[in-house]
Amino acid sequence: MEDELSGYRGPARELLLRAGARVGDEVELALSDGGSISGTLMPRYEHADDSHVTLKLGNGYNIGISVSRISEIRISRRRAPQPSPEPAPARAQPGRGEVLVLGTGGTIASRIDYRTGAVTPVFRPEDLYSRVPGLYEIARLDTELLFNVLSENMTPDHWSALAERVGRAAAKGYRGIVVTHGTDTMHYTAAALSFALEGLPVPVILVGAQRSSDRPSSDAYTNLKGAVAAAARGDFSGVYVAMHRSLSDLEIAIHRGVRVRKNHTSRRDAFQSINSGPAAVVDLRTMEVKKLEELPPRSDPGSLRVKPRFDRRAFLLKYFPGMDGSIVDALVDAGYRALILEGTGLGHVGRQLQGSIARAIEEGVFVGMTSQCIWGSVRMTVYETGRDLLRLGVVPLGDMLSEVALVKAMWLLGQGAGPEDMRSLMPSNLRGEISERRRIVA
Amino acid sequence: MEDELSGYRGPARELLLRAGARVGDEVELALSDGGSISGTLMPRYEHADDSHVTLKLGNGYNIGISVSRISEIRISRRRAPQPSPEPAPARAQPGRGEVLVLGTGGTIASRIDYRTGAVTPVFRPEDLYSRVPGLYEIARLDTELLFNVLSENMTPDHWSALAERVGRAAAKGYRGIVVTHGTDTMHYTAAALSFALEGLPVPVILVGAQRSSDRPSSDAYTNLKGAVAAAARGDFSGVYVAMHRSLSDLEIAIHRGVRVRKNHTSRRDAFQSINSGPAAVVDLRTMEVKKLEELPPRSDPGSLRVKPRFDRRAFLLKYFPGMDGSIVDALVDAGYRALILEGTGLGHVGRQLQGSIARAIEEGVFVGMTSQCIWGSVRMTVYETGRDLLRLGVVPLGDMLSEVALVKAMWLLGQGAGPEDMRSLMPSNLRGEISERRRIVA
Repeated sequence: MEDELSGYRGPARELLLRAGARVGDEVELALSDGGSISGTLMPRYEHADDSHVTLKLGNGYNIGISVSRISEIRISRRRAPQPSPEPAPARAQPGRGEVLVLGTGGTIASRIDYRTGAVTPVFRPEDLYSRVPGLYEIARLDTELLFNVLSENMTPDHWSALAERVGRAAAKGYRGIVVTHGTDTMHYTAAALSFALEGLPVPVILVGAQRSSDRPSSDAYTNLKGAVAAAARGDFSGVYVAMHRSLSDLEIAIHRGVRVRKNHTSRRDAFQSINSGPAAVVDLRTMEVKKLEELPPRSDPGSLRVKPRFDRRAFLLKYFPGMDGSIVDALVDAGYRALILEGTGLGHVGRQLQGSIARAIEEGVFVGMTSQCIWGSVRMTVYETGRDLLRLGVVPLGDMLSEVALVKAMWLLGQGAGPEDMRSLMPSNLRGEISERRRIVA
Repeated sequence: MEDELSGYRGPARELLLRAGARVGDEVELALSDGGSISGTLMPRYEHADDSHVTLKLGNGYNIGISVSRISEIRISRRRAPQPSPEPAPARAQPGRGEVLVLGTGGTIASRIDYRTGAVTPVFRPEDLYSRVPGLYEIARLDTELLFNVLSENMTPDHWSALAERVGRAAAKGYRGIVVTHGTDTMHYTAAALSFALEGLPVPVILVGAQRSSDRPSSDAYTNLKGAVAAAARGDFSGVYVAMHRSLSDLEIAIHRGVRVRKNHTSRRDAFQSINSGPAAVVDLRTMEVKKLEELPPRSDPGSLRVKPRFDRRAFLLKYFPGMDGSIVDALVDAGYRALILEGTGLGHVGRQLQGSIARAIEEGVFVGMTSQCIWGSVRMTVYETGRDLLRLGVVPLGDMLSEVALVKAMWLLGQGAGPEDMRSLMPSNLRGEISERRRIVA
């Protein structure tokens, strides 16, 4: 019965067992106050409390009803029989796959939850084939669970380990590599892999889900399918993020790892390419992978160089009115070697920070400017404040995202970059992280 | 000749004077290398160097050409004669206006630049009428230059002074008040006025420009017209931001002061309402003001209460992977009383911060959670990390923008709020700063 009442525990489970109800059944709950509610019995999260039953109503909303209010459960219609899992195809032998799927946390396979580690991960290729219809037709998979961490607990050390593992796999001849990842910090990790893996011969596709796979609205399976298609079939190389392009299930957007940001807490199209469209799309009906812009082609593994070190002594500081220089002083005193300012507008911070910024730069700390506007580009020659900051030695970072600038600074410091290297390399376009090339006069 | 060669100085000015060229003329520049360039002679910024001439090409781009490359200037066509300024209407007497326009910096009137203070401000109503066609028909204005600061140098002290001045004007019976403001921090100031002015009887409209009025693409005049229309004609009260709704000149969007963000460094539609559309729009053809949602009506000035104090001991901290707790410790040690975390996703920060956050809360520091995703809402009951943070006492702030949460914290502290007041008032909806009311079960 484990699967029949997925996630239910305690009193709620007992009540459902007594009624013989199963997840997916149409049920009518008679309530102790005389009313009744009809809907489809939904699974519960593994962390959910044990005293509610969840129904999906006709209007699409899920509601939780306390067991104490339920006087009777009537089953109106049994759920349609589930298709039995496809048998694991004989050809899917470990170590012979075309695409490597690397897990970094969570329970892909059993739930493709990507986050909570409560359930023993089931992550074998045959599990994925049976749960994601059509996946087997796209590519033979190898799978490996590399970490089991929540995305918000990812650190630069995880980036290093992941880069090393991806690098080995790319050198080994996989057609592509998929990294399943929590969405919270997936764009930071995508940037980290972009810098750490130079001359990647194949596509490396990060993928997550905004809703876990035990929810009917889950995007986990569609995203994974799109990611595997891009890894196996995309005629490009480099690091990308694969997520829904819109609220519909028509396309998976393939975003460049250095141009993408999570812009919504919960929507399935939360990830967006900034200052451009996505680099490619996967059509979920045909599973075709279509480039939308010029991308680096697949290449020989011989050109790959893995540079996995990151140095944490970089800080991203978002400016706000009323901030004073003491925070900058404190960061310099604490030993930070790079400060990425997230300024206002075209790249400004209040005058009261100038003394501390000047001191930081004198002490060899790199100070770069990005914008908290997110879209558009820093341009520090337009106004007096920008020109003052330029004179102090603040380096404008074009339209580089602040998050990407932070990761790049950690990576350059990790490669041993000194103050002069930082000043020349931070504003240089190494991996497509600066998209705007035109220079506007006047 | 001041206006004929606006902004030109030194060698560039001499060259143009010799040729008899005026801003707006179609000219052909013969170049010393044998080539030539044709276009419209553009004005220069007052801070621009003195050795370039700026032309607008047929493709719409402005380019700067060094004087040293120019061998001759030929005038192909004189610009069309400028309409002479409307005479100042006799009825526009100081102190009798319907709308008060408060300047906070820059040179509205001569340029509506909103930022650079280099030119003596000309800010009389008659100057505005003559420069903004149709403005006189909308409302009689009084004007006052309150400060002359760049927007990025605005501080909570400026917010206090501005709130007091706006409060006096609202009590005096103006139909509406317009505040011209640099765009960099206009949304912070809009939030500040929203909290400081309780029971506002009339609309208070902040307005800026993304391009200064000496550029043909300037949005300064259209934005100002829209702002004055909203102040004079809008049948609502409260604090709003008026800026272009799109790239076209059809509509000015009126955004709620607590729901708006600058999302682009340079586009004229940079300001967007987050998690909703704009509250109202002004049709620039008819100058009609149309509400798009339910808004507080105009009311009696007697209900107005001005609470202008802000306390700077609040800090907005954007989380990133690799951040550790020492920054939180340093802020607590420095005496901050409120910490607004800009977490990832639904409201998370890495586990390694939990000890420092717990200590901060024990010492009476308010710790609130917002999301760096910008769109969507914090929801901390979904995942383990969120629940851990809730247990420590971190307060989820719904879909309040992080910038608004910071300003609100400064304002509540300024009103003398203690830790318990902060915990109850920060997540309460005081001015529409929390838009999402529905509670989702399961």
